[in-house]
Formats: sequence, structure tokens, C-alpha cells
Amino acid sequence: MQIDILSLFPEMFAGPMQSSIIGKAQEKGIAKIDVTDFRRFAHNKHGHVDDYPYGGGAGMLLQVQPIAEALDEVKEKHPHTKKRVVLMDPAGETFSQSKAEELVKAEHLVFICGHYEGYDERIREYVTDEISIGDYVLTGGELGAMVVIDATVRLLEETVGNQDSIIGDSFSTGLLEYPQYTRPREYQGMTVPEVLFSGDHAKIADWKAKESLRRTWQRRPDLLINYPLSEQQKQWLDDIKREESDG
Amino acid sequence: MQIDILSLFPEMFAGPMQSSIIGKAQEKGIAKIDVTDFRRFAHNKHGHVDDYPYGGGAGMLLQVQPIAEALDEVKEKHPHTKKRVVLMDPAGETFSQSKAEELVKAEHLVFICGHYEGYDERIREYVTDEISIGDYVLTGGELGAMVVIDATVRLLEETVGNQDSIIGDSFSTGLLEYPQYTRPREYQGMTVPEVLFSGDHAKIADWKAKESLRRTWQRRPDLLINYPLSEQQKQWLDDIKREESDG
Repeated sequence: MQIDILSLFPEMFAGPMQSSIIGKAQEKGIAKIDVTDFRRFAHNKHGHVDDYPYGGGAGMLLQVQPIAEALDEVKEKHPHTKKRVVLMDPAGETFSQSKAEELVKAEHLVFICGHYEGYDERIREYVTDEISIGDYVLTGGELGAMVVIDATVRLLEETVGNQDSIIGDSFSTGLLEYPQYTRPREYQGMTVPEVLFSGDHAKIADWKAKESLRRTWQRRPDLLINYPLSEQQKQWLDDIKREESDG
Repeated sequence: MQIDILSLFPEMFAGPMQSSIIGKAQEKGIAKIDVTDFRRFAHNKHGHVDDYPYGGGAGMLLQVQPIAEALDEVKEKHPHTKKRVVLMDPAGETFSQSKAEELVKAEHLVFICGHYEGYDERIREYVTDEISIGDYVLTGGELGAMVVIDATVRLLEETVGNQDSIIGDSFSTGLLEYPQYTRPREYQGMTVPEVLFSGDHAKIADWKAKESLRRTWQRRPDLLINYPLSEQQKQWLDDIKREESDG
């Protein structure tokens, strides 16, 4: 997968894009990430790529021309790839695991990261996707692009040694993960549930499935609204509600 | 504001935490960010801080002991600060602009960034907040911590020259931002709405308010569910619905 990032702060990407799974994916050659500083496409000696909003208002807006020309350069370098051009923007579609599963199928992803107050509206004409990573305001699109790239590259199966570990993750199953424990068995008076030492695999699997449901019901009941509960899960959910109301 | 980050990948923070608004906040001395590699607190010669889950399962879990000891060190360095200890976790509370507004009041924020499959459940006993930045799976908590820090430090008012530019942002008003335009007036055949050149400030303000409402209704109708619409906004919303259904 070819990934291009258009940003005014290319140095932000150095650490995150070399670490961990993204770095490994690049070493293995299954993902290649290039960052373009689109200030290069400013048509003025000061390198300005922003200007005042028409009709007044606070802050500065990114101009359409430097972005459009930076995109042209990416297209010239990669004339034959099928591209998805993603604008990182608070007014975009909220990013989700299913969106990551969609993006991972792309051959070439191009991210446009804004800064300043916002974009000239016409920049949207050049993109295929507008993505927001959540309902909060960030100083720029760079961190959002890194988040989308991390979630997506993580799904490129070759980068992950153990497929099981993806399948059990929160959101991949549609439920939150059950509580997990590792050594030591006791730490500062805190112990591990006995069932996990029972050696009874079926019982442990049931405990995990039920606790996953409990955590989801307690913390994110919204995830259960359209969730296709099995008969067993419905029974467990009734138990959980009774257990919790009993305190 | 003192910010501590506990992470196994401290090098990830170098670029993002020096760039842009976070770097400026540190230069001005209004925020100080320290990153601790908690692998230092491993009690084995290999520097392992993860182990197999009790009861079986895929992947490795972060152990409670290295995290607990790293937190102890932070507390020793800053014995008198009032701390909020934030666990970055997919099962946490979904981050939002109002959560950023809450965190910005803290004196000292400590972020715990996991990696691998998950945490030993007992780590939760040491934290005051559990935060997820959205419903997607990332390879670690680092990018999430950066997102929360960016949104929070941005609100430390001294870091932002122009307060107006915060007030108008998407999510700060509860609505998405209206379309914005800057020079040139025409680019590749794309023009700017005439109203923005009318010089009629009241008319321009009305246009912006109505278009902000239109964008929210089109893209994020969920944001309008509990939104306290004024009489004027209700009237505009009726107009918008009629305009859109007329095509």
C-alpha cells in the first residue's frame, strides 16, 4: 500500500511512522509512506499557504491552490494507482473500525492534513473521503492521519504475527474486551479471578464471553443496541442486570 | 500544567510533542511534558513488561507491577500536584470536547499508554480516568495520548493567540463549521458564494449561521438531537429541509 501525506509539519511524522507496527510494515515493504510539505507549492516568496476568510471571521484558511498542486505531484509520481484522497476534517465522517476495514482495501491512500482555522471549501472537491477521528478539536490533521494510518496498516494482515489477537480486540467483535490478567497472581493485595486457574476451558470461555458482555453493558450500552445477541448472550445479559442491581 | 507519559515507545513523542501548539506551550512554560519508558521498571534481565494471560488467550498483557512502579516515581518527583491518571484504553470513556474542557483544569495529567494485546485488569485500580479516542483499534495508546494532549493543551488559553478562532470551531459551538473560502475568488472554475462579498455583515452572519446548521443537519444530525435551537434556528432548519428536498 502506498501512503502519501500532505502536511505543513512533516517532522511530526518522523517518530510515530517509524515506530511499532507502521515501521515494521515499511521494513517489510507492504506499506510505503511519503510525506509532502505542501508549503513547497506556495506561489509567494513568504511560503504562505493560508489567507483571510472571505466575508470576515477569525483565523486563517488553507488555500485550495497549494493542496491541488501537491495532489497533482502525487498523481504524477503514481499515475497508475487507484487512489483514495482523505481530508482530515472535524466535519468529516466519524472514523470507525469498519472504516479502517474499508480503507485497508485501497491501493493508495493520500491524506490531506490541515492546520490553522480551516480549509477553503473548494478543497473538498479533490477528495474521496472526509474523516474525523472524533468529536473534539485538534490543532491540525496530522495526529488524525496518524491514527487512521495506524488502525489501517494494523489490518494489513502481514504486519500482524498473530491473527487471533486482532479477532479478540474490542470493536472487532463489536463488544468490549473482557478483563484480562497476567502475572503475578497477587499484587498489592489484588488477586486474579479463580475461574482462570480452573483448567476448565469451556468454563473459562463462558466467563470471558459473559464478562465481555458485562463490560459492554456497563460502559457502552450503545454498542448493544443493534448487536445480534445469541440466546446464550441474552440469558447472560439478564443474569448481569440482576447481578448488578443486587450490587 | 505538568504532563507525564508512561510509554514503551518514548521516541514516538519526539516529533508531535515539539511541533505546533504543544511545542509552543512548552516553550512558554505553560505545559511541561515528560515521557517515562516504563521498561526501566521491569524486574527481569530481558526488560520484559508483558506476560501471557491467565486462563489462556492470544497475545501478551502488560503487567501491573512496572506501571505501578513508574507511577510511584512520577509521584515522588511531583509529590504535591493534584493528579489525574489517564489510562488510554479502547474500553474507556469516549473522548470528547467536553472531556478536554474538563482535563484542561487539571494541574497534572499522567497518561498510561499500553501496547500488546491489553492490560492486566488491576492497572485500572491506579487510574482516575479511562479514555478511548474512538471506536477503532490502534496498536498502542501513544497516538491516543497525543490526541488528548493536543486537544487539551490547545485549550490552555495562553497557547492560542486568537480566542475567537476557538469559539467558532466545530464542536466548541456544538455544530459543525460553515463552509469557508479564501483567495483566489475563482480557482479551476470554482467560485465563492456571492453573499460573502456583499459587505452586509448581518446578512453574512446569518448565512454562516444557517450554513453551519445545514452542514450539521446533512452530516451529523445526531448533534442536533439535544441541541437547544433558537426560534431563528428552527426556522432556518425548516428552510434547509425544504431546500434540500427540493434538490
